[in-house]
Parts: sequence; structure tokens; C-alpha cells
Amino acid sequence: MSSRPTTVIVGGVAGGMSTATRLRRNDEHRRIIVLEASGHVSFANCGLPYHVGGVIPEREALLLHTPDSLKERFDLDVRVNTRATAIDRHARTVTTDSGEVIPYDTLVLSPGATPFLPPIKGIEHALSLRTVEDVDRISAAVPGATSAVIIGGGFIGLEMAENLRRRGLEVTVVEAGPQILAPLDAEMAGVVAKRMRDNGVRILTNSQATQVTANSVVTADATVLPADVTIAAIGVRPASSLAEDAGLETTGRGGIVVDSAQRTSDPHIFALGDAAAKKDHVSDEDTLVPLAQTANRHGRLVADVIAGRQVSSLPVLGTAIVGLFGLAAATTGWNEKRARAAGKTVRIIHLHPAHHAGYYPGASQLHMKLVIDADTDAILGAQIVGEEGADKRIDIIATAMRAGLSATDLADLELAYAPQFGSAKDPINIAGFINDNLVHGEETVQWHELDARITTGATLVDVRSTTEFASGSIPGALNIPLDELRARHGELPAEGDIIVHCQVGLRGHTAACLLKNLGVGTSVANLDGGYLTWKHGKATL
Amino acid sequence: MSSRPTTVIVGGVAGGMSTATRLRRNDEHRRIIVLEASGHVSFANCGLPYHVGGVIPEREALLLHTPDSLKERFDLDVRVNTRATAIDRHARTVTTDSGEVIPYDTLVLSPGATPFLPPIKGIEHALSLRTVEDVDRISAAVPGATSAVIIGGGFIGLEMAENLRRRGLEVTVVEAGPQILAPLDAEMAGVVAKRMRDNGVRILTNSQATQVTANSVVTADATVLPADVTIAAIGVRPASSLAEDAGLETTGRGGIVVDSAQRTSDPHIFALGDAAAKKDHVSDEDTLVPLAQTANRHGRLVADVIAGRQVSSLPVLGTAIVGLFGLAAATTGWNEKRARAAGKTVRIIHLHPAHHAGYYPGASQLHMKLVIDADTDAILGAQIVGEEGADKRIDIIATAMRAGLSATDLADLELAYAPQFGSAKDPINIAGFINDNLVHGEETVQWHELDARITTGATLVDVRSTTEFASGSIPGALNIPLDELRARHGELPAEGDIIVHCQVGLRGHTAACLLKNLGVGTSVANLDGGYLTWKHGKATL
Repeated sequence: MSSRPTTVIVGGVAGGMSTATRLRRNDEHRRIIVLEASGHVSFANCGLPYHVGGVIPEREALLLHTPDSLKERFDLDVRVNTRATAIDRHARTVTTDSGEVIPYDTLVLSPGATPFLPPIKGIEHALSLRTVEDVDRISAAVPGATSAVIIGGGFIGLEMAENLRRRGLEVTVVEAGPQILAPLDAEMAGVVAKRMRDNGVRILTNSQATQVTANSVVTADATVLPADVTIAAIGVRPASSLAEDAGLETTGRGGIVVDSAQRTSDPHIFALGDAAAKKDHVSDEDTLVPLAQTANRHGRLVADVIAGRQVSSLPVLGTAIVGLFGLAAATTGWNEKRARAAGKTVRIIHLHPAHHAGYYPGASQLHMKLVIDADTDAILGAQIVGEEGADKRIDIIATAMRAGLSATDLADLELAYAPQFGSAKDPINIAGFINDNLVHGEETVQWHELDARITTGATLVDVRSTTEFASGSIPGALNIPLDELRARHGELPAEGDIIVHCQVGLRGHTAACLLKNLGVGTSVANLDGGYLTWKHGKATL
Repeated sequence: MSSRPTTVIVGGVAGGMSTATRLRRNDEHRRIIVLEASGHVSFANCGLPYHVGGVIPEREALLLHTPDSLKERFDLDVRVNTRATAIDRHARTVTTDSGEVIPYDTLVLSPGATPFLPPIKGIEHALSLRTVEDVDRISAAVPGATSAVIIGGGFIGLEMAENLRRRGLEVTVVEAGPQILAPLDAEMAGVVAKRMRDNGVRILTNSQATQVTANSVVTADATVLPADVTIAAIGVRPASSLAEDAGLETTGRGGIVVDSAQRTSDPHIFALGDAAAKKDHVSDEDTLVPLAQTANRHGRLVADVIAGRQVSSLPVLGTAIVGLFGLAAATTGWNEKRARAAGKTVRIIHLHPAHHAGYYPGASQLHMKLVIDADTDAILGAQIVGEEGADKRIDIIATAMRAGLSATDLADLELAYAPQFGSAKDPINIAGFINDNLVHGEETVQWHELDARITTGATLVDVRSTTEFASGSIPGALNIPLDELRARHGELPAEGDIIVHCQVGLRGHTAACLLKNLGVGTSVANLDGGYLTWKHGKATL
């Protein structure tokens, strides 16, 4: 054993391998040992579902590096199929499952997370998706299979549903909660659910799997779902038992507690990636955000701290995106459910703009939602669903949130416009405009508040065209097209609450301004996001 | 004449019409008169080239509103083919070309800009592109034409070149400057020039048109270019003569001077859009940025100011994008030329990342450049060229600039990652990482500095594979593949300057760290952006 300082890194995927390669660039003389429990390091875990679906046909494309290539380029001592089983913090050693005792000067824990398997009968028949070996097992099970059940309607479950449809299987998603994609609010998740169903995926919400067999999944209401392949994709738990056993501090949800330098309660031990707790951008409370993007950035940071730099990680937003049957669903920060649960006074904005200029061919519709702190104008979070441009807009909002811009500031962002790429008033600017209108007194009603408002006597006016109205409308609405409203406003009650709406909210805004300026009604509000948001909210989840 | 307050708006396209419609929503009782010199209001001027090319086949698609629809919806008094010819500021009246004298309480000047026509012989044969009438003239000229010359290689000129190629014409672009797309630095513009040439557009730089005839353009070196159609797209000048004649203050370049509420030197008169001067985000000096996006935002602002709100416009970044033969070229803030001319100490970063995860099919390469103030770490500007995702990244950087984030802050932006949409280390993060490396002592050499460095004795090491080296290399480079460098570093001089390079800069970074840590050479620098940036810099413009 040389006298070179030694860093042992537990986990050789996103966080661990970013740490290892950066640490080598920082320090040529250090001994760097990477212990990876699976048979592969530095693999593209976010690509695994797409290999199952055949989108990424070559398995090798998933393997970005091998122990040999890492030895060659970075002089790393990478040991696959090697699990760290114990840490002796006093002696500063790690013991592996082969019994080897490895001394360290610094230890980095990046073991990732473990798929959660519910304690139901026959769960051993279910496969999960985390490693290359998992993919190999699923790939082996698919040929000859005609049906699959995915337990869990989160990001990975739905990606698997899409990819198993690609392989021609009948696919059912069994989701215990009231909706798929829990990070989204219901009316946003509904858009994705419809796309999934339109592509032949059966979705059962509020449905509990109670038994798995070799060819079926049984739910709590005794439905027997055919399942030649069953995938458990309920969620993950931090793989923090090694840390816990060594007496390192963890959160109630199992995340290894770290400071802003990613240092655990032992100054010689760092933790990062899915196993480490993070600080939430909005609340600054402990949270778990198992995302590769954060793991990679924190790996770089840990390597710099080990090399002696003073650097700090920032709280996390949880920016995430999933692509499903040509539709992207993206989110950052908090959703409305969470903000309300935390007691925030929220301002909610829905909009449905085209992703680029409507006059240029190929414009597709975005469905956007912003959750804003009504007291401070801070952006708490956003959700965007659409075929094109959702990724761009969520990234702009995530950047604005990171920088502390307010919701009103979105109105003045100067974004690139040519008709193929955006609009003279970009969807982001429009969100800022709407917020500015609300800050300055315009009133909106949310889709889920509408029934109660009508029950208490509000008059609902649909200002869309008669053709639009005829093709589907909200029960009880009176149709006066916007362009006739100036002449026909006398048909509306001079007193009482008036709620106007159009298809997406823009004409409703113009109508609300008009009626307010004309003094019609005691109050005038616009239905936020218009008929479309209302319809999304009422759709089957 | 009623006693209602009257606002007269000169110009009925982006800025003027945004003002008018917003003002109506703010105030139902005001008289709003819009005077538009051309025959159309509220038309999609950024779409005009695409109608010529047939991408937007329906002329009606360009006409977002008509005077009738604006009367109906917004009770606007819109008068097309009506030019304002004089302002009597004392009487508060505007005179039109038909001799009508219209009193105003507030006047809004949004007349746009006028295409600049060089004073050369036969310039009357050249068409320009600004209005729907201009498009009609070009559309009438194209059938039967086989050749076209575009004078001016800016955004509109190149869009016209593409669209005339779509119509099957032989197209030559005559650019007086040393490169097309002046907002980009040379090595970035070169990528676009190559794409144009690959698609059959002839580009002549440093070439001055001296005469236009009905079927040719003659250049200063007596080249006669066939031109059944000639388009002058040299640039625009603020249409500020009306304002100047009325004694309103203008800048040296003709922009109407306004305060942050877009108010001119006469408190009853506002100006916005291409005719108004703006403040530059970087220098806070007067500038001209003739972009629809800014005009629209400022229109909303002027309407709010007139309605009594206290609001301020922000300095402009000049964020812009153009799509050419499937390639996007985007820019925000300052380029290197401008930053150096202004005496800034700049830090330059080039990178060439894939627009999404490389392991997922369809990844295409981005070419990115950041211009950073080396003294403050402020982002001065960025340029991005690529087939996919350039618009997203320029918007993220524009948002970061607006928010005052530093270049290093880009490393920690939390952007959405799934393999179809981005990378675990997004190109934006990588730019931040590179900047962070430079801030912490890593040295890079720019493509245009390389010759001088080699002349003064630096050793150039190409760390790409032997195959890559064989298919094209920089004269004088020694090839030691990165994976052999640890073993073969003894082949390099222990003293003296060493410059390493790879294809795009990443392996070069690893190599530079390795050599530095091994103590090889007196100094070690990495060629910024690698072989690719060097090659782009050396390419024909």
C-alpha cells in the first residue's frame, strides 16, 4: 500500500463516477478506488427503458465507460460486482462483500437508491428497473410475452409502459394514488393520462396491487390483470443502510444527511446522489430528489471539496421531464397540492399557448401551469405538458427560480424569436403578463372552484364563438361571443358575480376587462386557463 | 368630437398594435386611433420571407387582424394607407397625408424602421422586405425568375436567400463586410456560411454591390451577377423623421430618445419599437434593437403607462435567432468583437456538446460560444449554432443574463433531463464548468492565438485518436492520444509552453490537467473548443 492518499467511492454510476473522474483531474497522485455493486459502471440509467423498447438497440450504447477504459483514461481502480458491506469509521476502512478491507482517507458514498418493492404476495415475480442487469432480465422476459402490468404510474413506470407498448405488449398501469405522475397536479396529469390511453395503455388509478403471479397481477378489487411481465416501479428508497449501519446521520426518509459541501456527519465521509438528502429550494427543508442531473453536479463538487476547494451545493428544485408517446411532461419546484399543503397563499396560472408562432406551420399547443406565492410573487413551481418546447420553457423557469426572479419578471424576459422557434410574445412572457394582470387586480377562478361559484349564484359567460360553444361547453354557461359582448352586455345582470371564460383564457381576459370597465356585474372574474383547463380537470385520471 | 381622451398611435404592427389592444383593455372609454402607412396592420412581419418561400402558403395567415376585426373586438379606429406627416406638439395634433388633422391627448410613435437602400446606380431595381406590399412585389417577381442576388448577409437577407432557394432560384448573397451574420463572431458565422453554401447559396463577402439592373447586380470588382430578382437587405434605419421634424430628441443613429417609461422628450408623446432608442443591457448606452419581441413588450408597457401605472422598461439584450436550412443561429448580448472593442477583458469559451444525451438516437451537435467579463464573471453574451436546441440554450442564457447570474452560476442550473431532451450535464452546465475551470487557473488558447503561440515556441499536442488525427489535423501538432499520455508524457519537453487539443475541448481539458499535475512543461494550455473551433475559425467566411 502506497502512502498516497486514498479516496474510496461507493457507487460507480452518475454521482460516483463524476466524483472519480473530476478527482483524478484535480489530483494525479491520489489513489481512487470505485466499488460498484452491479456489474457495470457509468451506465446511462435514464436510457434503460429505451433499450427495452428498442429505441436504443445496442446495449453497448448504454455503457459509457468500462473499468478498463476508466483505468486507461483516469487511472481509476474500478471494481464491479463489489458491494461495500461495512464502514469502520474509526479505522477508516471499508469492507467489501469479498471480505477485503480497504483503508481510505476520504470516503464518498454514492450508492444510489433501491427500487421499493411492496410487501405483497408473489412480489418476487415482479421485475424492477435500476441496473443493466435489470434491463437484461426484462429484455429476456419480453419475447413471447403478450401482456405486462406496471405497478406504479411515476416517471419510470410510464416510460416502461411506453416502451413495452413499443414491443407490442398489452400494458396496464396500476397506480395506487388518484392520478399518474404525482409531481403534476391532477388537471396536468390528465393530459398525459389521455395520451397514454390513446396509445393503448390501460391506466387504473386508486388501484392497489395485492398479488403478483407468474402471469398476472391481482388488484384489491379482485381484478385479475394478465401480466406475462410485471414491473414494480413504485419508487425508490435511498440506499443508505451502509451509512446508517456506520452511524451516519440520516433523515426520517432515509437520506444521508450532508452539509452544503456534501459532507456527512463524519468529516471524512461525503455522500451524494440519490442516497443523500438535499435541501429544497422553496422551503430549505430536507428532501429527496433522485435525479441524475443533481448527482452529476454534486459529484464534481465533492471532488473539488476533497481537492481543497471551498464550494457549496445549492438547494434543489427537482426539475424533471419525461417523454411519453410524443408528449413531454416537465416540472420544476412545487406543485399546487404541495404549496397548499404547506399553507402557502398561492396564485395559480394556467395557459395553453402555441410553442411557436401560430402562423408558421407545425405549431403545437403547450399546457402550462405556474404556482406562485401570492404574498411574495415568488415562483414556487411550474408544470408544462406539450409535444414541443416544454423542455425549453421548464428550463427557463427553473433558471428564473434559481436566480430569484419573480413571476412578474417573466413578462420581461427577452427570449429568442423567429417563427420556427417561438413567438413575439413567448409563452413565458405571456405567463408573466397574466401574473402581472392578477397582481393588478384581475380576478380568476380555478377550474375546481367553478361549481361552487355557480352554486352561489355566479353567472357564467362563455365568450367563445357559437361554433366552439356548440362543440362542447360548461353546463350552465351563457354564450355571448367576445366580438358581440360590447353590444350585448345588457343581457348580463348588472349586479352579482360574473365569470367569463373562453377556450384558453385570452379572450376571457379581454372580456373580463371589457365588462369590468363597463361596470357590468358586482365582480367579474375570468376562468383561469379557460374551457381547456376545466376540461382537463374534469377528465378521467 | 367627443370629450373622451384620445390616443393616436402611429404604426399598426407589433409595437403599435400591442399598445392599442392593451390600452383598450385598460380603458374602455378612450378613443384610440391607429394610423398605419401600409395597407395592413398587425401582420406577421417575421413570417414574410416564409410566405415568399411557400412555407406559409396562405397570404391570409400573415394577417393576424384587419381594421374590421380590430374595430369589432377592441373598438379601435384603425386607418391603413394613412401616413402621419406632421406633429404639432403645441396644438397636440397629428396631420395625415390626406390632410386630416387629428387631435390627441397622448401620441404613441411606433412607425418601425425603413430598409436602408444604398445610393448605388439602379437601386430602384432592388426590392426590399418590410411590408405585406413588399412581399407581394417579391412574390410577383419570382415566377419566371431563375436568379436572385441578395445585397446584405444579415438575418433577413439570409432568410430571403433560403426562401428563394426553396423557390428554385440561383441565389447569391453579396455582403460588404468580411462575414455574413455580423452579430456572430467569425468562427460562428462560418458554420452558417458553410450550411448556406452546402445548400447552393453563393456567398460573396468583402463584396460591394455597385450597380443594379433589371437582371443583374454588378460588384466593385466588376463581377456581373445574374439577378432576375434583387433584394436589398442591408439593414434598417429608425423611421424617426416624423419625430425629428417635430423636434423630438433622437440619437446619433436616429433612434427616438425615450425614458424608461418609453416617454419621448415631449411628455405627451411615447415611442417604441424599431424607431425608438433602447438601453443596452451590458453598457446601458443607447442602442438600436429592431426586434418584434421587444416592440411587443414595450407596447404593453406604454399602454399601462398611459393608463396611469408606474412601470419601467429594462435594457435590452438583443436576443435573436434565425433558422437557415435546418440550422439555427442564435445570439444574445455582446459578441467578442464588440466586447474587445469596448475594452473589456474577456474570457471566451467555445464548446460543441450534443443537444441531448449522445446515447439516445438523434443527438445533434451544438456550437456554443460564451463571452464573459473576466474581471466580474458577468456573462456579456452568447452565440449558439445548431440544428436542435440552440433556441433553448440561448433563452436560458438570456434569462441568466437578465437575472444577473454569473458565468459560473451556469454550472449549477438545474435543468430538465431525460435523454430525449437534454443531458445529465446539460450544455449550459458544461459551459459553467469550463468557466469555473478557467476561473480556477486552467489556461486556454483561442483559435486565433494559436499561430502566434506556436511561432513563439509552444509545443502543440493533439490528444485525439490516431484515426481522428489522420483525418485532419492542425499543422505542427504532435499526436499522443489521451489514453497514452500518462505513459508517454516523457516525449514532451519538460520546459516550455505546451498547448494540448482534442476535437472539442473535453479530452484536451483532461490532458491539460494530467500534464499540469505531472509537472510537464512550464505552462500547459488547452485549445479552447478544440480542433473544431479552430477549423471553424479557419473556414471561408
